[in-house]
Amino acid sequence: MLSGAAVVGPMEKEGPLGDDFDNAMERLGPAKDSWETSEIDMTVEAVTTALNKAKISPEAVDVYCGGDLLNQICAANFTARKLKTPFLGLYNACATMAEGLLLCSSLIGSGLCHYGMVSASSHNATSERQYRFPTELGVQRPMTAQWTVTGAGSMVLGADGQGPYISGGVIGRVVDLGIKDPNEMGAAMAPAAFDTIQRYFTSSKTTPDDFDLILTGDLGYHGHSILLELCKREGLAMGPQYQDSGVWIYDKKQDVHAGGSGAGCSASVWSTHLLHEIQKGKYKKILLVGTGALLSPLTIQQGNSIPAIAHAVVVETGEVTSC
Amino acid sequence: MLSGAAVVGPMEKEGPLGDDFDNAMERLGPAKDSWETSEIDMTVEAVTTALNKAKISPEAVDVYCGGDLLNQICAANFTARKLKTPFLGLYNACATMAEGLLLCSSLIGSGLCHYGMVSASSHNATSERQYRFPTELGVQRPMTAQWTVTGAGSMVLGADGQGPYISGGVIGRVVDLGIKDPNEMGAAMAPAAFDTIQRYFTSSKTTPDDFDLILTGDLGYHGHSILLELCKREGLAMGPQYQDSGVWIYDKKQDVHAGGSGAGCSASVWSTHLLHEIQKGKYKKILLVGTGALLSPLTIQQGNSIPAIAHAVVVETGEVTSC
Repeated sequence: MLSGAAVVGPMEKEGPLGDDFDNAMERLGPAKDSWETSEIDMTVEAVTTALNKAKISPEAVDVYCGGDLLNQICAANFTARKLKTPFLGLYNACATMAEGLLLCSSLIGSGLCHYGMVSASSHNATSERQYRFPTELGVQRPMTAQWTVTGAGSMVLGADGQGPYISGGVIGRVVDLGIKDPNEMGAAMAPAAFDTIQRYFTSSKTTPDDFDLILTGDLGYHGHSILLELCKREGLAMGPQYQDSGVWIYDKKQDVHAGGSGAGCSASVWSTHLLHEIQKGKYKKILLVGTGALLSPLTIQQGNSIPAIAHAVVVETGEVTSC
Repeated sequence: MLSGAAVVGPMEKEGPLGDDFDNAMERLGPAKDSWETSEIDMTVEAVTTALNKAKISPEAVDVYCGGDLLNQICAANFTARKLKTPFLGLYNACATMAEGLLLCSSLIGSGLCHYGMVSASSHNATSERQYRFPTELGVQRPMTAQWTVTGAGSMVLGADGQGPYISGGVIGRVVDLGIKDPNEMGAAMAPAAFDTIQRYFTSSKTTPDDFDLILTGDLGYHGHSILLELCKREGLAMGPQYQDSGVWIYDKKQDVHAGGSGAGCSASVWSTHLLHEIQKGKYKKILLVGTGALLSPLTIQQGNSIPAIAHAVVVETGEVTSC
């Protein structure tokens, strides 16, 4: 990982990690002509800032793995159009950042690419109207609902540099225990996170104690409790090193109910705050678990439940030990 | 490439490649409760058929790279849910099959995965109402419009087997020359195809004559002519070995105007007809160019043009020569 950057909305700036983000929009509303344009602009700025920090020009980037929550992943498409880098469009909902990190690090590790770039984003206003209700309707949200993060995060990876390194991971499987309520994302995603975490610990013959930090993407308060409960039931001892990015990003006073969610949640937290903490030496071996609810308004209306997925990415400093 | 399979709609079955497809739906309409369910069912059947042909169980698959044209790539998500294989969700519109082949072959080539599976699909009824007009409206289509293929195609790749092999490729860049009409997909995608083809021939120091077949995904009649014109202008001699899957899939009598399109077009043609022709010895070295119009109804309504992308995949039989 050569660098990371994030651009967020005003609420995320006011949150506990506000000082970590590179820039913040003054207001959620359209920067130019639409919320979608705001999201595209955030993504372009995050990616450009990360490249500048790594001192790498867009022309030197061999692959850009990007995605977001907009239909047809517009924010990533238009960012790729602007940067003119080779582009692989990804969609795994809020697990897109983890998917991108897995793919990009694999392409670099195999020698096929030298420099790569990953991004993911979400925007509260573009997401809520697309996935739930028209924003103007002002629908009351239940306490299990999470607040879609307005934010774009980007990381630049390279075959050289001082680390931290991506030393392993697990590609997630789709798990669906039948949740049909789009305001219950934590409950929909927790079983997928558990499946991936269990597969990782089993295959790598490690335990949660081998990690300073196990950080899920955006399970929020409810999903965090459910995952802890699932681990307990299956005899997997998760201690206080288990944290969630959706719990970190907002203060409880900000009235976001069950915490943050959205592809931009893990993307902006991992690309800035987490990277800063690693650089300060706080964490040495981390298991990132990107969690995604593959929610489609259409299939929900047709009576289907919400499939979910989680990808794990192992990040280490110093000498790489796992694989 | 260990195997391939495709399930299509009635019109594709009646077309010139009808006998190549593994199965066809009797009618376009809902198999069960919705068109989306039909598309999911087609994808599950294509993937399962390909796995059966390769004599590989879903449990042996290390990675499934899949995508489609539905918002949130539902067909791939629900297929991954059914098969329980590790899943990477992709979206590059009609270039998704090529993107999947590139990624899956890279993960296998690097030794990270042993068996992989790729799928892409589209359905005329689910796509047209999502991207253009309500189906019931019966809007007249201009002659430049292409017919979205109803079809799902899947290929199984492995580290062993007799070939054909994926020996190289190019990750496409997003190119946008300003086309704003969603009935002009060929014109939107041809410049992206040209960019990728030119980058491939320049970097690999090969010429079109080194290939038996250069096959674009779904440029259709108009896009095919535009690409030939672009090549001519830039001094790249493309002969009769340049063909298009969207031209192949329908007979001119079928009144589809500019030919076939959709993620299921290249996916179903490459997974069956092309693979059969390779097995018969007709082609030995092929340049596949998956072409995708990253069309979003929302950004079109907001006045944006259509970004496009094309990925190239080199397929060879016998000894692998290029990289």
